[in-house]
Amino acid sequence: MESQQIQKELLNGVDVPQLTQIIDNLTNNPNQAQFHFCARNNWVNGGENQTTINEFYSGGEKHVRSKSFVFTKDEPPTLLGHDNGANPVEYALTALAGCVTTTLVYYASAMNVKINRVESTLEGDIDLRGLLNIDENVKAGYKSIDIKFKIDSDASPEILEKLMVIAKNHSPVASTIANATPINISLA
Amino acid sequence: MESQQIQKELLNGVDVPQLTQIIDNLTNNPNQAQFHFCARNNWVNGGENQTTINEFYSGGEKHVRSKSFVFTKDEPPTLLGHDNGANPVEYALTALAGCVTTTLVYYASAMNVKINRVESTLEGDIDLRGLLNIDENVKAGYKSIDIKFKIDSDASPEILEKLMVIAKNHSPVASTIANATPINISLA
Repeated sequence: MESQQIQKELLNGVDVPQLTQIIDNLTNNPNQAQFHFCARNNWVNGGENQTTINEFYSGGEKHVRSKSFVFTKDEPPTLLGHDNGANPVEYALTALAGCVTTTLVYYASAMNVKINRVESTLEGDIDLRGLLNIDENVKAGYKSIDIKFKIDSDASPEILEKLMVIAKNHSPVASTIANATPINISLA
Repeated sequence: MESQQIQKELLNGVDVPQLTQIIDNLTNNPNQAQFHFCARNNWVNGGENQTTINEFYSGGEKHVRSKSFVFTKDEPPTLLGHDNGANPVEYALTALAGCVTTTLVYYASAMNVKINRVESTLEGDIDLRGLLNIDENVKAGYKSIDIKFKIDSDASPEILEKLMVIAKNHSPVASTIANATPINISLA
């Protein structure tokens, strides 16, 4: 990411000098770029469970969040739940939506592009026969995910197109999903 | 998924006869197994944005949730945010935690295995040089994700091991992440 023509400290709510400083720091100190994220989950009942997020590590240093973030997941009745929360595949869309948006806005700020509004819709199809092992040839997860952006900005369509490509290629959640990411499960 | 030896209507909070009925229905009517999930996202400012979940489709039929689920994402100060929410890569862990847990509990119920407690921790490393394009050879997303389960159940370690493998292979979010899932981005 190159931060060119910085005219304002805060562009799109992003502190561009701080962003430049982070890029310089991580370029010179790759160890500082190593982030470790974590989550704790507790099953509640049936399709309901709760995840708590309250800390992460960067460069080996622990960061405690200002407060814990607690998320309830549940299924709708048609999937045997009580609708007490969005379900996990909806949380996955939520994660992806946030990540491509933040990536787009951070890069826009570094490129001195003022953004007024970013809306997006995300959609994806899942064949439940994968989850239920009714047909072993059916993938359990999303077949693909479509993201449609509406961006209000003075930037040209070419710049907006470039920002979307950057968001797709450099968003950590998009990268996690679009590339096969190994998952290791074990009993503690 | 085979639902054997069903002795109780509700096992682990799961309505096993309804689960059996769903499996039978989707086996005979693959069209009914086609689920379509969606999310709407609005950028707020800087690294903050908000996702709303309120409907999904199954077999072409629209289901409106009992209420909208709204999620705020933000970054911690060290990543240029104001800590107003968990960040997108933490939401991704949240989604995965929920999905493997629900998959495990649903299969346990179908296999007549009583579960008393399921806790898990999820951890993953991200090299921020990928997001910031400091090194184009660095993946932007999680290198891998480790899930450690603590399960309290009368079932044997072999059964619990089997349930974990099922959870890994049949959880829709785990499947989305562990296999390369195409993401299509466009301007609406």
